Amino acid sequence: MTRQALVEQIAKKKSFLCIGLDTDPALLPAHLKSLDNPVLEFNRQIIEATKDLCVAYKPNTAFYEAQGAKGWETLEETAKLLPSEHFKIADAKRADIGNTASQYARAFFEKMNFDAVTVAPYMGSDSVKPFLEFPGKWAIVLAMTSNPGSEDFQFTTTDFGSPLFQKVMEKAQRWGTPENMMFVTGATHPTRFAELRRIAPEHFFLVPGVGAQGGDLYQVCQHGLGYQLGLLVNSSRGILYAGSGEDFAEKAREAALEIQQHMAHIIGQILR
Amino acid sequence: MTRQALVEQIAKKKSFLCIGLDTDPALLPAHLKSLDNPVLEFNRQIIEATKDLCVAYKPNTAFYEAQGAKGWETLEETAKLLPSEHFKIADAKRADIGNTASQYARAFFEKMNFDAVTVAPYMGSDSVKPFLEFPGKWAIVLAMTSNPGSEDFQFTTTDFGSPLFQKVMEKAQRWGTPENMMFVTGATHPTRFAELRRIAPEHFFLVPGVGAQGGDLYQVCQHGLGYQLGLLVNSSRGILYAGSGEDFAEKAREAALEIQQHMAHIIGQILR
Repeated sequence: MTRQALVEQIAKKKSFLCIGLDTDPALLPAHLKSLDNPVLEFNRQIIEATKDLCVAYKPNTAFYEAQGAKGWETLEETAKLLPSEHFKIADAKRADIGNTASQYARAFFEKMNFDAVTVAPYMGSDSVKPFLEFPGKWAIVLAMTSNPGSEDFQFTTTDFGSPLFQKVMEKAQRWGTPENMMFVTGATHPTRFAELRRIAPEHFFLVPGVGAQGGDLYQVCQHGLGYQLGLLVNSSRGILYAGSGEDFAEKAREAALEIQQHMAHIIGQILR
Repeated sequence: MTRQALVEQIAKKKSFLCIGLDTDPALLPAHLKSLDNPVLEFNRQIIEATKDLCVAYKPNTAFYEAQGAKGWETLEETAKLLPSEHFKIADAKRADIGNTASQYARAFFEKMNFDAVTVAPYMGSDSVKPFLEFPGKWAIVLAMTSNPGSEDFQFTTTDFGSPLFQKVMEKAQRWGTPENMMFVTGATHPTRFAELRRIAPEHFFLVPGVGAQGGDLYQVCQHGLGYQLGLLVNSSRGILYAGSGEDFAEKAREAALEIQQHMAHIIGQILR
């Protein structure tokens, strides 16, 4: 998907919501559990109930891998359920040397038609570049993540006094463009967003950590809005598990709608 | 597998060879291609031909994922083919936040009975620790990798004048012990091994990059030998694709034997 198509979808839906399909079989509503593939049916109903409210879906591959080959099949089937208008992110946080990274890129871009894969930067250029060689596909590079452990290395001061995440963002901008690269920037560090924007004014940021992890949408937007809005804000658990009964999809829609309405308000303020 | 069991196997086989099962369907001998599952048969014959010469096997998950759900099934089947005496490494370079990292750990340790998973450190403690919570299982943390891109961030000078890989190794030693944590240290930087040993004298190092990537076994050993030998040296392409005809397994054995004989020589020198 091109950046232009993504931006148009954001404007049309008044939403920059990404829904994380981190579907945990242990947390499914009881009435689905007797089905042949409860995870797939859960995903199907979540997608149906929320697709007009979000612009992106992001399955985290770990939840599928934990179920073995059958889980991987469910991931493939879930990818097929995603509407073509949505930006499809495989949250895989992959990283490997050149020839191996290419294998990963093929798995997600060609086998499953994802638009983007999240990649971990520790191994450097040749672990990221192979993801940038597919037209219309994106690498989303981990910069500042939302978890407590992000403090361990990402905020370490490097050569010229800048934190490691800054070095990652600066170097990665030599490999990709705002048309094929985004950065993961966690909502749990909202006060750093102004800094992030100075480093990468034009790139989209994929922002996890709003909701269950404690990040705040308004604070993220206050400091993090960029060229063409430039944010995809993700919510996973807060939407997927808003309800736990037969009305889970309805509850998920309500939770997504609440976020989308805040987003519409923010977009309205920008356009004013 | 315990460290003691691994060390005993090294002494018995006079080998610290790990064979990387990075099986690329495009590189298989022609006579296997008509089979129902050529990759699995290739792996089966490679394992049969080399199992007395190596102490560990390491499938790189990317090569299996690139084949979709069927590839994932092949990975599961390959894991079942690995003899119980061998140290079984899933080279997955995974990394994610706590609850998600636990999903990955379950996938590899419980679904497939691997002994170890390679993990990327960028996300910090809570992305590594979940792998350390399984008795007898190991996390192998990327420290200094063998690829050209390793220079991009791993050698960056951090707070106290030490390179990032050193900070990673020092911090990670607070999370795990030499009984459940190893480090990936690439053979393409042999002159750094003395430094690596000063940082982590007791931990095993998993060393990729010997052979096809240009690393030298003797140089690695000269500087990198540690307590209880402390090295697992990996070769993938140099063994898997030593031959390309019907005798591929025989050629693979010859290539593995050559490395094992060098290793026996090195072990003999230590014991002398």
